[in-house]
Amino acid sequence: MNLVVKKFGGSSLASVEKIEQIADRLVEEQKKGERSLVVLSAMFGYTDSLIKMAHQIYPNYLGPAYDILLSSGEQISVALLSLALEKRAVKNKVLLAHQAGIQTSSFFSKAEIESIDTTKLENLLKEGYLPLVAGFQGITKDNQITTLGRGGSDLTAVALSASLKAEVCKIYTDVTGVFTADPRIYPSAIKIKELGFSEMMEMASLGSKVLQIRCVELASKSKVNIQVLHSSKKEEGTWIINKKETGMEGSVVSAIAHDLNTLVIKLTNTSSEIEFHSKLFSALGRESVFIDMISQSTHKEKSSLSFSIPHTDLTQTLKVLKDFVKEEDISIIDQAVKISVVGVGMAQHCGVAGRFFSALSQVKTQIYLLTTSEIKISAIIPEKNLKETVRVLHKEFFNF
Amino acid sequence: MNLVVKKFGGSSLASVEKIEQIADRLVEEQKKGERSLVVLSAMFGYTDSLIKMAHQIYPNYLGPAYDILLSSGEQISVALLSLALEKRAVKNKVLLAHQAGIQTSSFFSKAEIESIDTTKLENLLKEGYLPLVAGFQGITKDNQITTLGRGGSDLTAVALSASLKAEVCKIYTDVTGVFTADPRIYPSAIKIKELGFSEMMEMASLGSKVLQIRCVELASKSKVNIQVLHSSKKEEGTWIINKKETGMEGSVVSAIAHDLNTLVIKLTNTSSEIEFHSKLFSALGRESVFIDMISQSTHKEKSSLSFSIPHTDLTQTLKVLKDFVKEEDISIIDQAVKISVVGVGMAQHCGVAGRFFSALSQVKTQIYLLTTSEIKISAIIPEKNLKETVRVLHKEFFNF
Repeated sequence: MNLVVKKFGGSSLASVEKIEQIADRLVEEQKKGERSLVVLSAMFGYTDSLIKMAHQIYPNYLGPAYDILLSSGEQISVALLSLALEKRAVKNKVLLAHQAGIQTSSFFSKAEIESIDTTKLENLLKEGYLPLVAGFQGITKDNQITTLGRGGSDLTAVALSASLKAEVCKIYTDVTGVFTADPRIYPSAIKIKELGFSEMMEMASLGSKVLQIRCVELASKSKVNIQVLHSSKKEEGTWIINKKETGMEGSVVSAIAHDLNTLVIKLTNTSSEIEFHSKLFSALGRESVFIDMISQSTHKEKSSLSFSIPHTDLTQTLKVLKDFVKEEDISIIDQAVKISVVGVGMAQHCGVAGRFFSALSQVKTQIYLLTTSEIKISAIIPEKNLKETVRVLHKEFFNF
Repeated sequence: MNLVVKKFGGSSLASVEKIEQIADRLVEEQKKGERSLVVLSAMFGYTDSLIKMAHQIYPNYLGPAYDILLSSGEQISVALLSLALEKRAVKNKVLLAHQAGIQTSSFFSKAEIESIDTTKLENLLKEGYLPLVAGFQGITKDNQITTLGRGGSDLTAVALSASLKAEVCKIYTDVTGVFTADPRIYPSAIKIKELGFSEMMEMASLGSKVLQIRCVELASKSKVNIQVLHSSKKEEGTWIINKKETGMEGSVVSAIAHDLNTLVIKLTNTSSEIEFHSKLFSALGRESVFIDMISQSTHKEKSSLSFSIPHTDLTQTLKVLKDFVKEEDISIIDQAVKISVVGVGMAQHCGVAGRFFSALSQVKTQIYLLTTSEIKISAIIPEKNLKETVRVLHKEFFNF
């Protein structure tokens, strides 16, 4: 089907004026003969204010009522855009969770899409309607509303693109695309024309906020081409596609990502027994602590263990640690940042690690933790060295 | 079924704290063995803010998108109350339009309830759930969300009470009941213990804001006993029931109502031909002008015609009038109020009209228009005479 799925995020929907702008854009594109399906998030700030009310009443509750509450945000967005399209005499139809055929698991607040019945959507498209689907929400087999978790509207858009075999899934955001580094940290960074799915997945997991990893994963699995675009600036954006490893001619590294939501826990005088590690990390797992990088070293029968976690998991982590180590053996490094270079080209190129280290050595930065994979190298370094490190890495891998 | 339907309005839901209070009250009543079903409105001010956004985009649009937008308000209320009940370990279940089985016409923004499939609700009640139904909304045969218009949540509550044969439908509001006169106008007014359906209907149509006429009409038709109560003060409130005409012992008049949303149009030099009236009022009807009271008089071949309309219909009325009369023959009296005495006892008592006029004569007020029915007398008088007129009428019919 010659169809374009378009997803607009909260910042593109921050006001009535912005909603009217989207309507204008859709009219224009329809005049050019483009057949679209629109997926919307909640208006900017709306979901957060609902979460706040929910937490005031019952903190940490996650069940059906929470999802019913949160799904109202997307409902409002689609209704308002529908009003704007009605005013412009565009034949359109709103579809909420129970109408769009998106069936999910019943894991409330983090439901997974299980199947999509596209019959209704296909009929609407055939009849010339512009369907407006409330993102982020689905419905269980027994007719209960669910939500898909953070970034859930992107997931809705990609899942519908896959089911309807859309040409492309356009994700409209408040940035013009994915950049070689965060432009707020390194203003010379440039927009990337195209990225492979695996690169984008790594970047999402390494701190790039542009797309959530679940959405890229699904796009990769179902071969949905994504275009990341700015919602009002008319620029080409970044394509996320099934990219072949670039050969000699391509660049080795596609982008430099960083993530400030990281801190390092260092334990000294630990046992080097594998059983100790197994028990410790199992206990942390039970408390839902997300462990990112781990490093262990033994020196003259004394062992030490470092690992990184998100800031938000610190309380839980310390609760677990007190059963395993003495307080004086725990140090917390919270002024840290994870910096990564990502690129499918790395798999074919030797010496990337060498170049990475030689760049870092120019900054004379300490490295707390380090990991590598086929297509990325990550290091956790002191936060104060972030800017300078991004600069030298960018220079090393992009020559500017 | 030994069931109590409880409807809480927007002012009882104005904050998270108030929602918690309702939850506490429900827990308490459940402990006493009361089986309930709850219907909620949107939180105070919420629907108005949605309407404002809708009007900013597309003023006067009333269609599916408008109803989808507005129905989100009740969705939020039921979700938040459900959270509060979950915290208190009360087995409860939220039901939105498409889940509660309330099927309506497809007249968007003013849909009429056509049927209610109570299977799901009855099953939930049997399984010991406290059902929380989003008021004000329904669903068409083809699965589109509709809303029921102003006061729609009361209607939902009464309709569910009828279908489930509830013992009573309790309407929780921000007043402690229906009074013999508006206490803001006449502080000596007292709360009425019970009112007949027809009296309450007259009062609703005569300006009492406590219940909407549609809801009382439905209650009357389906013999649903209503109790109007304050949402936090524990007082008995007012019962609206199938009241027999009170005999000699009962009071003749139940209450004094007034309505400031009225103005009088006086036309002079009009034709006395019935055809003129027929054409004029048909034309006004086509413009959806609501005509309340009419009076025509002929004196020496000169005719004049007066009628009353709500303030909001003035523009439309003047538009129509310019095709029928000269501008200099139109006068508008907009500082007017409609004052009424209501009571089923009137039907059995002569002389009520006489007592009404004698009371008004004490105030020496002008009377612009007058109507009577079996159970009420209404007069439109200058607004400046409102307080004093209520006082003398209250004295005449209640002796205090």
